[in-house]
Formats: sequence, structure tokens, C-alpha cells
Amino acid sequence: MHAYRTHNCAVLRAADAGQTVRLSGWVHSKRDHGGLLFIDLRDHYGLTQIVVPGGSPLLEIVERLRVESVITVSGEVVLRDPATVNPRLPTGEIEVRASDLAVQSEAAVLPLQVAGNEHYGDELRLAYRYIDLRRERVHRNMMLRAQVIASLRRRMVEQGFTEFQTPILTASSPEGARDFLVPARNHPGKFYALPQAPQQFKQLLMVAGFDRYFQIAPCFRDEAARADRSPGEFYQLDFEMSFVTQEDVFAAIEPVIGGVFAEFGGGRKVDAAPFRRIPFDEALARYGSDKPDLRNPLLITDVTEQFADSGFGLFAKIAAAGGQVRAIPAPGAGDRPRSFFDKLNNWARDEKQGGLGYITFDAEGPKGPIAKNLEADRAEAIRSACGLGAGDAVFFVAGPRAGLQGMETVKFSGAVRTRIATELDLIEPDAFRFCWVVDFPMYELNEDTGLVDFSHNPFSMPQGGLEALDSQDPLTIKAFQYDIVCNGIELSSGAIRNHRPDIMLRAFAIAGYSAEEVEARFGGMLNAFRYGAPPHGGSAPGVDRIVMLLADEPSIREVILFPLNQGGEDLLMGAPAEVPPARLKELSLKLDLPPARPTGGTASPPADKSAKEPVAPDRS
Amino acid sequence: MHAYRTHNCAVLRAADAGQTVRLSGWVHSKRDHGGLLFIDLRDHYGLTQIVVPGGSPLLEIVERLRVESVITVSGEVVLRDPATVNPRLPTGEIEVRASDLAVQSEAAVLPLQVAGNEHYGDELRLAYRYIDLRRERVHRNMMLRAQVIASLRRRMVEQGFTEFQTPILTASSPEGARDFLVPARNHPGKFYALPQAPQQFKQLLMVAGFDRYFQIAPCFRDEAARADRSPGEFYQLDFEMSFVTQEDVFAAIEPVIGGVFAEFGGGRKVDAAPFRRIPFDEALARYGSDKPDLRNPLLITDVTEQFADSGFGLFAKIAAAGGQVRAIPAPGAGDRPRSFFDKLNNWARDEKQGGLGYITFDAEGPKGPIAKNLEADRAEAIRSACGLGAGDAVFFVAGPRAGLQGMETVKFSGAVRTRIATELDLIEPDAFRFCWVVDFPMYELNEDTGLVDFSHNPFSMPQGGLEALDSQDPLTIKAFQYDIVCNGIELSSGAIRNHRPDIMLRAFAIAGYSAEEVEARFGGMLNAFRYGAPPHGGSAPGVDRIVMLLADEPSIREVILFPLNQGGEDLLMGAPAEVPPARLKELSLKLDLPPARPTGGTASPPADKSAKEPVAPDRS
Repeated sequence: MHAYRTHNCAVLRAADAGQTVRLSGWVHSKRDHGGLLFIDLRDHYGLTQIVVPGGSPLLEIVERLRVESVITVSGEVVLRDPATVNPRLPTGEIEVRASDLAVQSEAAVLPLQVAGNEHYGDELRLAYRYIDLRRERVHRNMMLRAQVIASLRRRMVEQGFTEFQTPILTASSPEGARDFLVPARNHPGKFYALPQAPQQFKQLLMVAGFDRYFQIAPCFRDEAARADRSPGEFYQLDFEMSFVTQEDVFAAIEPVIGGVFAEFGGGRKVDAAPFRRIPFDEALARYGSDKPDLRNPLLITDVTEQFADSGFGLFAKIAAAGGQVRAIPAPGAGDRPRSFFDKLNNWARDEKQGGLGYITFDAEGPKGPIAKNLEADRAEAIRSACGLGAGDAVFFVAGPRAGLQGMETVKFSGAVRTRIATELDLIEPDAFRFCWVVDFPMYELNEDTGLVDFSHNPFSMPQGGLEALDSQDPLTIKAFQYDIVCNGIELSSGAIRNHRPDIMLRAFAIAGYSAEEVEARFGGMLNAFRYGAPPHGGSAPGVDRIVMLLADEPSIREVILFPLNQGGEDLLMGAPAEVPPARLKELSLKLDLPPARPTGGTASPPADKSAKEPVAPDRS
Repeated sequence: MHAYRTHNCAVLRAADAGQTVRLSGWVHSKRDHGGLLFIDLRDHYGLTQIVVPGGSPLLEIVERLRVESVITVSGEVVLRDPATVNPRLPTGEIEVRASDLAVQSEAAVLPLQVAGNEHYGDELRLAYRYIDLRRERVHRNMMLRAQVIASLRRRMVEQGFTEFQTPILTASSPEGARDFLVPARNHPGKFYALPQAPQQFKQLLMVAGFDRYFQIAPCFRDEAARADRSPGEFYQLDFEMSFVTQEDVFAAIEPVIGGVFAEFGGGRKVDAAPFRRIPFDEALARYGSDKPDLRNPLLITDVTEQFADSGFGLFAKIAAAGGQVRAIPAPGAGDRPRSFFDKLNNWARDEKQGGLGYITFDAEGPKGPIAKNLEADRAEAIRSACGLGAGDAVFFVAGPRAGLQGMETVKFSGAVRTRIATELDLIEPDAFRFCWVVDFPMYELNEDTGLVDFSHNPFSMPQGGLEALDSQDPLTIKAFQYDIVCNGIELSSGAIRNHRPDIMLRAFAIAGYSAEEVEARFGGMLNAFRYGAPPHGGSAPGVDRIVMLLADEPSIREVILFPLNQGGEDLLMGAPAEVPPARLKELSLKLDLPPARPTGGTASPPADKSAKEPVAPDRS
């Protein structure tokens, strides 16, 4: 018989009754039933009930064992009494009558319990992560993550992609987020950087002719933690394809993303491919956001025209000044009490807005403070434009139209849309709704300088190519750039790249860069494009974020095995840590500590919790 | 019709004749056949011949195009003239008669050629890696690597393992190889380290109950480059399993490793599982190495006894002093000319050995300088012990038996074994021969201090457990530790871990460590083991090394997409590089440069070759 187990803790069934088996696992719980002792024995796969019969010499051993001790039990599989069968447990028809029991590892008093659902603070959970990870929900989240990643890989291969590993010790990037730096011992004064993304490498792979690349890519940004972004490192499904249009990129990745959400969505509704494409301008106009949440059925309408020269002076004045009035419908809210509208008005003030005007409609017509001053035909036009009827209401957001302030008006109308749909319980439950936001503007006006700047990504191919750059007003030029959005959350941006040095130099010239500047800053990439580069494009959906959505967890830390805490510390391993002066010396570095400023983040862990790496890891 | 291609360059066949198609790719070569122009159009998938008919207006465009330009060609698929069918090309029955042609990217004069097999230096190849990677052999190696890794993943999943990602920003380890350090901006004076291996994390995953973990794990060591190890980063197939014996580990991984070698070995012979297990002592005794190359049929024999008190004074003296004489057979070498033996003798002297004595055997008996002084029955005993006959020869290595010097004697006998088998062409060709070296000693005697030290890995479980530690001579205790070796190359070490704090403290006590020291240095791991730890073990075969063996490449750089050069530099991206003083300031660091020492490695690349990361990578 095997030293530790003949079966795992999930597989024994009624048909196995009479067999002598051996199981190993953790003591999940113990119950004393007057002489008899029951153990729920747990391993990665499941639970099996163990009985230690009355009078057994094993009773004494088991009685002093704490839960979470690891034991090996041998004994006979016996059918449970029908009254004690547990239909919720796959092994619930049987139990194992212990005839032998070996203690593999005794557990000390636990700092947190594995069984049950008690809430523990993050610091305690992370300091004892190896116990926390045994808890059912945490364990399940990690397995979900592993399965999602395996499924992403399988689906990418099915789409003809090949996974390649790009370097992790690479060059610092002067723009974008902050890099992590790595001192190069043999090059005093010089540093590697950890990649924020394998962007250049994947484009070089296309130039090298690999056609369809992907990678579950570790990426690094020295940024503060957020609920949806881990400090330090994160993973993205990085991919790139050659000889493709934007639609080819969408067609390649939709079955992958949609497929994974369908596979692991647990019955939640998932959009079928093709996902909706929403132009950037329309996203702002109808959803008040470049990340539209399509679970929300409300659509925003521009009603500036209806208020222009109207009796409602405040909005008329805004319209006259070139501003905009945006209407957010609130279907069914017409008969809500005054307090409903007051609450929303107060919320708007909390958001530093002037307030939130509204009109309600009943069988007799429009009602409320705005309606009092607004001509009836204009109110009727608004009702009609918003597709509303008796019993409905409509809210208004008014403000400037142009520039950054105009964008603020738009974004607030989007926030109102979300808020109203939430209040009215209109957000579609149990659904993943996807869209591509497309046709991003290539350029925007810098209000401070009055000059034209790149709007998003200077390396995207402008729609219309060189001809558009040479002939169109730059502010009307769109880029082949796109975001994929799920439930209002951006999974990734992406683009068809500008692979033509001539078009790139012209695109930068419009934004005020000389050819010399462009060559100096981006010469490596430009040079690569000078030896035969295919048209190419791609994207990089966030893996952690996909898993977080599927696991329905509010924090990204819930889907990462050993996350850093908010302060960027690993309380289990004791990182970051001081290093001996000799190490700094060989890196040609000296500390240059600030005088007496407290360190960022939380305090270091006590010494007795920090673990050092064993002397001899498995080495290859 | 698609903007770029209806087919790739590998799929058109005779049956497609008459179709109008569109292909995109690189101009691999051009041939002018008196008015007609032929292009071999290449993409990732293959080659297709394009014909530009005489008189076509496209001729002018094609004539001025350099090879490696990227073009899109539209035209009709036509059958080749039977005389020009190319049977070595899958598309060799057809060609595409170009009716339209668009230049997607013009190639400049190339610094290295893609077609053909010209040899280029590493520096040039790495500086233009995106061109180098288009070359057939390099391209094929990278695809092999990708396929090997995908196969490893599939096979590990089939064995019940789950892939998890462990942290890359983690804690510095005080022992082992040198870590790369990463300054922590928000923790002045503190550093993360990149993992040399996920050793602790995988053991913690077992403590957390995940049962079977693996990872194609990026690992980092700040070590000099070697032919079989890239400077900086490398990948290992890291795995760990719970509730297993050493044999379970072997049984789980043999089908994975053996399967991958069989799948990608291209017909080379591969050992079937189970692989041979060779105790460490036997490996040294019979192969003169702890990494036996089983393609070499020669076995070493200890013939000290035969020389003790013999007429051959030199060896008799060595035997009398407690030394050893080791015999390495040379079957069929008996009739080699004197120069053969002289050459080997000179080689031995070059290796700082005294020389290489030998006996040849012919029909009349033993011959040669040693045989002259050796009693005939002793020579006969040697012949018999080594399994030799007339026409064979045997070489001798003699030296001390004990301690480090004894190990040198053994290792030189192993070197002789390799040398002789190579000279006699006895190494089995086209084969991958595997073995597990097992039963490593737990301890060894430190000759300087006279005290007992750990021999290899202090965290391995000693065979016999606590009882062995308490009752045996430490120098006789073996560990559950093992290496997997292929063709004399160690793919990985591994071990059944010591998961019991009591046994670990006792094991360290024997090596002279107090409990306080152990707790201070390894308290994190010890603590984890105090909350219920399963017996567990694993290993970590080197992925790059496996691919290198399969690709039959002498350098690990040939199986890595964007390797650092020997000096640890990336000539393409310009890493490592200087960083602005403000970056150092925010990391609380100052440079502490050595006065005027030249920097290690080679010079930095010229500025015009360094590429900076685009401003806006795909972000998730």
C-alpha cells in the first residue's frame, strides 16, 4: 500500500465499500459523538469522513490533535447509516473506519481558521497566506485563475497563435508609467528595467515574421495599488498579429474572451461574437463614457436644442454660450417621492456639480421645477427624444461643450446614467456585456498651448494613412485604435500599429516633433521598420482583471496567490528588505536616504515572520 | 477580398489552380528570367513562387525592390510547367501570376542576409535580432521552443498538475547564487529581489494544500554567462507534489520529460520510463561522475586491490597509502599505434595529471610499460575484472581515495572515460539517455575544520528520518535527493523536502547550527511547517537546456528569442542603460562608481541602435 494514499479525499463512493484504503490530508474538523470520533479529512480534491471507533487506541492520538494537522489514515470504507448520508458531499455516502493513523505534521494554534467563513484583515491573511489559501473561497479563486489561464492559452493556440517568452530584464522606457529598475552589477551606473509590457518585443516579433504571437506576460509598473491593479506585477494576455485589419484582430480575440467568460461564467449571460463596435464619439454621446457599461439600458440624449432660447433661463443661457444640456432618462421614476429626487440632487452636489435638474411625466404632462418654466412643446420634444412616457422622469446635466470642461460635462452625465440605473435597479444582473470602442481621435487640441497633441497612442496607424495626414484637419483624423470593454471595465487597449517610417515621421511632425527628435527617441523601432515590416496590430487584455470579473471579487488581491499588500510589501517573505552594504558596493550604489521622513506604506513585518530562501533551491 | 491575404504562403496546391488569390509576405529572393521575374514570397508558414509576367507594369516596381521588402500580391494560381515543379516545396506545383502588387514596407540594404546560411557574429545577429530571427534555422529553433513548452504544459496537466504564477518581485535570499535587486521606491533603503527559483513559494503552495503545482517559471541569477546558461534570466519547469515518495516524483515526471524528447527528438532514441536509478556512490565508482552519460558504454573498475603489493611500484605505493587505482577500459584499442597512447598521455598532462598508464592485451597476454613490471596473474585479474580480451586496452588513473583529492581522482577517471569513448567513437549517436542519480549523502566532512557539513541540500529529508539522525554516523546518512541527467547533462536537482521542524532542527544541529540560528535564518519556512504541512517533493528541469538538447545547439542563446549577450547586454534595446538622476533620487540611491575601472562586458551600443519603448503600450 502507498505510504500516503491509495485515493484522494474526493473519490470514494458507495461502490468502494469494503475496500481497505489509505487517505492523507488536513484535519478539517473533529466531532466527538460520545466515544466515537468523526474527522472531516480534507485535501485539495475534497472531504472524506473518517470514523475513529469507540475503544480504538487511535482515539487518544486524535483527541490531542488540533485541526489543520496533517494525518494519514488507513481503514475500511464503510457505508454510512442512511440517516447520516450527506448528499451535498460527493463522498457523503461512505466513511472510512480508521484502523491506523499516522501524524505527518502537527498543527500549532492557528492564527486564522480554515473551516467556516470568518472575516480576517488583509494583513493577517497575507502574513499567513499559506493558511489563508486553504480556505474554500480563496482556494477556489486560485484554481479558477489557473483554469482561466489554461483556457486562454488553449483558445489562443486554436486561433493560430504561438506563445513566446519575451525578456524580463530589459531597457528602461522614458515615458509611460514608472519602471522598476534593476542595477547591472557588471555595468556600474547602468540599470535594466522590468517591462511595463512586451510592447516593443511583440512588434519586433512581427517584424521577425512570427505572424501570430501571444504570451501570458508578466508586466511590471511601479505604481500605487488600486482595487483593480496590483502594485508591482500583473499579467496580461499580450498578443499581436501580422497582415491584419482591425476587424481581423476583433475576430481573432472575440472567441477567446467570449469563450472564457462563457466557460467560467457559471451560467451568467455572455455576448456572442461579434461584440458591438461603438465609435468613441458615440460612446461619449450616448453613454457619457469611453467605457460603456452595456448592462445599463439607459441612453443619454443631447437636448441642448430643446433648451435653446427656452423659458428655463439657466439652461437657455448655457445653450446660448455654446454649452450642452444632456438628458438621462429615468424610466418608471415619475412617481417616486420628492425625496428620491432630493437624494440624487444632493449626490450631484457632493460630486461638486451644481445639482441635478429633472422633469417627471404623468398622464397630465411634464411636472417639476424645470417643467414650470419650460414651454410645453419643448418638454414634449424632450420626452419624445428620450423615448419616455407617463410615469417616467428625465434628469439633466448641463455645462460647457468644448475642451476639458466639455469632457467633464459628458463624464458627469455618464455618472448620472450609472447612478440612476443603479437606483432604479435597471443594471442587467448576471451578465457580461462586451463592446469595442473604436475610432479614437488621433489628435486633440492642447488648450494650454493651442497646439495639436497626440490624443492616445502616437504609434497607432491613422485612418486614411499618409493621405489623411497630408490633407485632413488633424483634429478630424481617427486612429485604428480600440478598447475592449466588459461591463464598463476596460480590459485592454489595442491598435493597428503604424509600421511605416514615412507615416510615423509625418504623424509626429503634426504633433510638433522634428524628425531628429523622433529618430533620437524611437530610432530603434523606426530602424526595425526599415528592413521589411508587415502591417500588424494587437491588444493585451488584463488577465487578473478577467479573473476578478469571473470570480466576482472586488479586489485583485483575491485572485493572486501571493500579492503584495497596498504598501507594496510581502509580509510573508519580508520584501522589500535592507541588503548588506557589500551588495550595494558591488552594484556601485550608495543609499541616499531622506533625512527623517517616515517610510511609505506600512511598517515592516516582525523579524520572526520573515522567511529567507533555503540555501539550495531546485536548480537547473 | 481581404486587404492582405486570402491564403498564407504554405497552402496553395495544384487543386487551387485557376483561383484568384492574394498573398502577403517578405521577398525572400528574386530571379530575373529574361523578361519574366520570379519572386519567392515568404511568410511564417512557407514559400510561394510569384511570377511577374513579361510586359507587366508591375515589373518596374519589383525590379527596384530589395529582398526582405514586404509586399501583397494578387493574382491567379497557375500550374507550373512539369519541368519546373519543385517537389521539395509543399507549394512547388503552382505559382501565382501577379496581376496586382502593393508594397507594404520597403527594405533598406540589409546588415545580414536572411536567405542562405552565411555565418554572422553574435553581436551583429543580436543587434539586428529581428532580421536574424527570420533565418530558417533560428526561426525553427524558436518554434521548437514554443512547441516544447506547450507540450511540457500539456503533459504536466495530464499528470494532474496545475500551473500557478508565483511572485517575481520578492525577497532577497542570503545564500545561493547572487540575486538581482530592485530598489523599492516607497521604502527607502529597501530592495526587492528577483527569484532565483520559486522554491519557497512552491513549498508554501504545498502547505496551502494545492497538491500538484507546476510553472514554466522565469528565474533570475546575477551570474556570468555560460554556454548552457543565459546571463540574467532563464526558465525552468518548476514542480512540486504532496504526499509523495521519491518514486512518485520520478513516475510523475518521466512521462513528461521522456515524452517531450520522444515528441521532438526527430527519431533520436529516447529511454522509456522508468529511467535508470543510479546511486550517487555507484555513479562515482562506475562513471567517475555524478552526471553519468549513459550513451558511453564504458564502465570504470576499481583495481586498487590488484595493484596492492604488486611489482608496479608506483601504484603499489598509492595503494599502500590508502589511495585508489581506477581502470578505464578501451575495447578494441589494443592494436592502436603508440601515438594513440602518447596523445592520451599528453592530454592527461595538459589536464595537470601525472600521465595516463595503460596495458594492452593481445593473444599473447598483457603488454606495455606497466605490464612489464606487473605480475601476470594480476594483469590477468585486471583484464577479467574489466571484461576485456585480446585486442583491448585499459587505462589507469591513480591517486588519493579520501576527501576532495579522492574526488579529483574519481572525476579525472570520468574525464578519461569520456575521452576514450570519444576517441574510439563509442558514444551512442542520436540518442537521449536518462538516469536519476539518487541517494546523495546528507553530510560530508569538512577537511579544514574536521566538522560535519551539509553535503548538498540541507532542506532535503534524510533517509531514515529522525531515527537515522539520532542513531547513525552522519557521514553514512543519505538524503532523499536526486538529479535527473540526460546525456551527461544535469537537467535538474530535486528532493523530497524535510517538512518536519523537529527533524530539520536536528539535521541542522548535526551540522553545528543552534536552534536559534536556524529560527533566525529560516524561521519563515519553519513557521509555515508548524501549521500542518504535507510530505512533499519536486524538481525543476531547465527548459532552455531541454530545448538546447533537442535543437542540438551548442549555445543556449540559439534557443532564446532576445538573449542578453555574454556581457549581459541587450544591444537591440540598449539595456542596461544610465537613468536620469531624478530616478535615482526618488529611489533614494546615489551612484558610487569605481574610480576609473573599465566597465565589464563589451561596450554599449551606439545611440542610433537603442530603441526606447513607445509611449503607449497596450495596457490592461
